[in-house]
Amino acid sequence: MKKALLLLGCPESPSQTPMAIYASSKLSQLDYEITIASTPAASKLLEVSDPNGYYVKDKIDIDSCLSTLEEKQYDLLLGFVSKDAAASYFVTFYHILQTESIALIFEKDPDVLEDLTKTVEENTEGKIVSVKAFHNPNPIKVRFDKILAELK
Amino acid sequence: MKKALLLLGCPESPSQTPMAIYASSKLSQLDYEITIASTPAASKLLEVSDPNGYYVKDKIDIDSCLSTLEEKQYDLLLGFVSKDAAASYFVTFYHILQTESIALIFEKDPDVLEDLTKTVEENTEGKIVSVKAFHNPNPIKVRFDKILAELK
Repeated sequence: MKKALLLLGCPESPSQTPMAIYASSKLSQLDYEITIASTPAASKLLEVSDPNGYYVKDKIDIDSCLSTLEEKQYDLLLGFVSKDAAASYFVTFYHILQTESIALIFEKDPDVLEDLTKTVEENTEGKIVSVKAFHNPNPIKVRFDKILAELK
Repeated sequence: MKKALLLLGCPESPSQTPMAIYASSKLSQLDYEITIASTPAASKLLEVSDPNGYYVKDKIDIDSCLSTLEEKQYDLLLGFVSKDAAASYFVTFYHILQTESIALIFEKDPDVLEDLTKTVEENTEGKIVSVKAFHNPNPIKVRFDKILAELK
């Protein structure tokens, strides 16, 4: 079974937790075993969002995960990037893992979105989904589905 | 079976969708049949947040729901209030339904929180959970659990 690591930084956007659940569900269907590495606030939101644990099976603190991370430990890295800190985490995890990587970059402010996208572009060769979004998760969802279709 | 109506306005807060799923799950355990009335953006977030429909069974557009709403149509009204518009919806639904009602008021700005709480307090006799929260859903969750315990 392939292994995917989802990376969640601080959940400023109302779309982050729902999209993390959606991505977990989609990747499970593609036979990935999923681990979600996240900050404490993002982790609490996941717990509340899936109280019966249907979607989120395996969670780990993002810093603990980083401290033991090894090259090729996961087959896929999917980073949620809506803040500078999350972009830095993605770049760091990308260079340690050296595996197939996707950055899902979403922000409501177009200038911030551009900055975040530039940071990821200049520092990694991962696939990038970059989309102006806040409330409405559909623009992120549609582009995420497209990039997943390319994975297969 | 008792019937509960959950009311979701525009999802500014990252805690809203996760708490709506949590509340649905908790109220189901208390034998409520749940309908979620929401704005289009809130509805899309719910879909993405529960792609397999484990938690959210019955959704309706908030305005369609309002147009056919009748006194005592639901046994419980639970309103998520983190914007002025959501407070107005709660007050309106409260007066039409005339049923047991809870307002879950959460905001990161203490002044806005106070204003929202005042609006609900002055215009309804519903139970109120009012809490400063944004990222971290736990303060809302803990108080919601307490008020649910009082329901039984």
